[in-house]
Amino acid sequence: MSQYWSQLVHSLTPYVPGEQPKVDNLIKLNTNENPYPPSPMVLAAINEQTNEKLRLYPDPNSDLLKQAIADYHGMQTDQVFVGNGSDEVLAHCFQGLLKQDAPLLYPDITYSFYPVYCGLYDIDYETIPLNDDFEIIAEDYQRDCGGIIFPNPNAPTGRLLPLDVIKQLLEMHPNRVVVVDEAYIDFGGESAIALVNEHPNLLVIQTLSKSRSLAGIRVGFAIGQAHLIEALERVKNSFNSYPIDRLALYGASASFADEEYFQDACQKIISTRETLVSAMSEMGFKVIPSAANFIFASHPNKDAEEIALALRERKIIVRYFNKPRIDQYLRITIGTDAENDALIAALKEIIG
Amino acid sequence: MSQYWSQLVHSLTPYVPGEQPKVDNLIKLNTNENPYPPSPMVLAAINEQTNEKLRLYPDPNSDLLKQAIADYHGMQTDQVFVGNGSDEVLAHCFQGLLKQDAPLLYPDITYSFYPVYCGLYDIDYETIPLNDDFEIIAEDYQRDCGGIIFPNPNAPTGRLLPLDVIKQLLEMHPNRVVVVDEAYIDFGGESAIALVNEHPNLLVIQTLSKSRSLAGIRVGFAIGQAHLIEALERVKNSFNSYPIDRLALYGASASFADEEYFQDACQKIISTRETLVSAMSEMGFKVIPSAANFIFASHPNKDAEEIALALRERKIIVRYFNKPRIDQYLRITIGTDAENDALIAALKEIIG
Repeated sequence: MSQYWSQLVHSLTPYVPGEQPKVDNLIKLNTNENPYPPSPMVLAAINEQTNEKLRLYPDPNSDLLKQAIADYHGMQTDQVFVGNGSDEVLAHCFQGLLKQDAPLLYPDITYSFYPVYCGLYDIDYETIPLNDDFEIIAEDYQRDCGGIIFPNPNAPTGRLLPLDVIKQLLEMHPNRVVVVDEAYIDFGGESAIALVNEHPNLLVIQTLSKSRSLAGIRVGFAIGQAHLIEALERVKNSFNSYPIDRLALYGASASFADEEYFQDACQKIISTRETLVSAMSEMGFKVIPSAANFIFASHPNKDAEEIALALRERKIIVRYFNKPRIDQYLRITIGTDAENDALIAALKEIIG
Repeated sequence: MSQYWSQLVHSLTPYVPGEQPKVDNLIKLNTNENPYPPSPMVLAAINEQTNEKLRLYPDPNSDLLKQAIADYHGMQTDQVFVGNGSDEVLAHCFQGLLKQDAPLLYPDITYSFYPVYCGLYDIDYETIPLNDDFEIIAEDYQRDCGGIIFPNPNAPTGRLLPLDVIKQLLEMHPNRVVVVDEAYIDFGGESAIALVNEHPNLLVIQTLSKSRSLAGIRVGFAIGQAHLIEALERVKNSFNSYPIDRLALYGASASFADEEYFQDACQKIISTRETLVSAMSEMGFKVIPSAANFIFASHPNKDAEEIALALRERKIIVRYFNKPRIDQYLRITIGTDAENDALIAALKEIIG
């Protein structure tokens, strides 16, 4: 606390990201990173740009990357916004689109950065409880609101919402923006980008951090009709002209050119996930059906936090949230097959 | 305009950065980039990190970089804040420290992003006119205020404010934060970092974009007492957990290890600047004394915008601001000696 702080700062409750341990001999299944390296084409593109041109500012509009994303998803470049990780894109959405004169709605169990953004931008919100199976029920959102946001698949549950339910939400609130945060969509979901051209109130957000193995270079993007993208551009250009650096710009763009590598990595993760789900179900875990690169699971006879601590003793880190309704669950990132085998062996020891 | 925008978005007037032309055969003296490449140690550090670890998030606290900056400037790490370019650092300052219940003060001629931040965060401000020689006069700031910010050297004038005047401002408003934006301090000024330990209300901001030739990787930082840094950390952790990517983190840190290269590049720019100032003075230009990597100059017989257009015809881009009091000035970045010679030859032709 300090007399010099803005009033806002006193009331902020900052987000706490998953631990980034500085030692190397851990099996790190706590922050939903991809266990496979980025495409060699990405590393080659970055190497090529590591030169004297770093003295120059990057393109403030990141046109190369917008074009790559637009081409990949069959959209126009004015339907694409890019930012320094999808967290920055989300922040601009909250400030530029979701701050309205009625409360924002999102699920009670969801990405824990959402209430932090509401605090940062003084946005009124209401949380809508998921049902007992951790599902979003469209009818529960039939109320006055300033907008809706949810991850799909949801985090930390991993559960996927089908496109027809998203369509229902879009049609329920045609004058409000619905943001679908698709950080994990490439691990088995169907993207709502397919609905953008019909729905002026839909914004879809994705990231290169998970399915494209690029958490280290911080690139996220949004796709929506041009009038929604313009709001984000106006906020971005009032905040930071050059959020995407030269190396991230070229590396991220190259990632969209290596479709085979991308599909292969996603398929391997899906397959490892199915192995893990089977093994944990056999051990008596309740596992929420996951379309993400993580699973959310609970054991009827063993406290979740205890399991997390016991895994940590075995040098395996997973994420535990000490929060209502989910304090008996663990969120476990899907690793390589070898990491998965080590995890299964450790869980067998712990559950006994 | 769109019904979906937050109210704020309708009223924003975004910042317009200097042009980043996509053709290569121009002499680009419009955005104050360094004409010399970054240190080879920076490129080596980035190359070393261009590997499979890009799949992992960077350290959210950028400890390596904070340590490098703290060591370089003889400070503690909790006195250092880092961001995705100094524009992001400035944005967090406006939101977290300069938004108060009295108006922020800054010079009428200054970095044109300041009013944009005020618009973004709904901050009341008053501009204080520079005197006729474009100098900041401390006594003019003797009034009720919520804080003070100015670049030193000032932009776009290049004029340096001595530390004793900064001290006067700090003592005049001990309960308000004074932000000294030192983007250009390494080209001949004395940093106010020397005053930080005595003044709890001083925050100094610097960037690696100019003197360290790293505009392409987007790193800026702030130095102040720990209670001011904490405000910035709280805002940052409510906005984006990982603003600095892996490559920028290692590249920026390496830059502080190559002091000889850094000093040499700065000295070359200062020497080229003095050559340019002499040559332009001989041509009849009025040149504001500059401690930056650019000069601000006006010619009594030739319209500034016309000169800019005539330079552009000769493939030289400089910056012209169509604004009160400075619409007869050009801001010209210091290039290499060869670029400088070409500029001087072109100006001689144009002025006749």
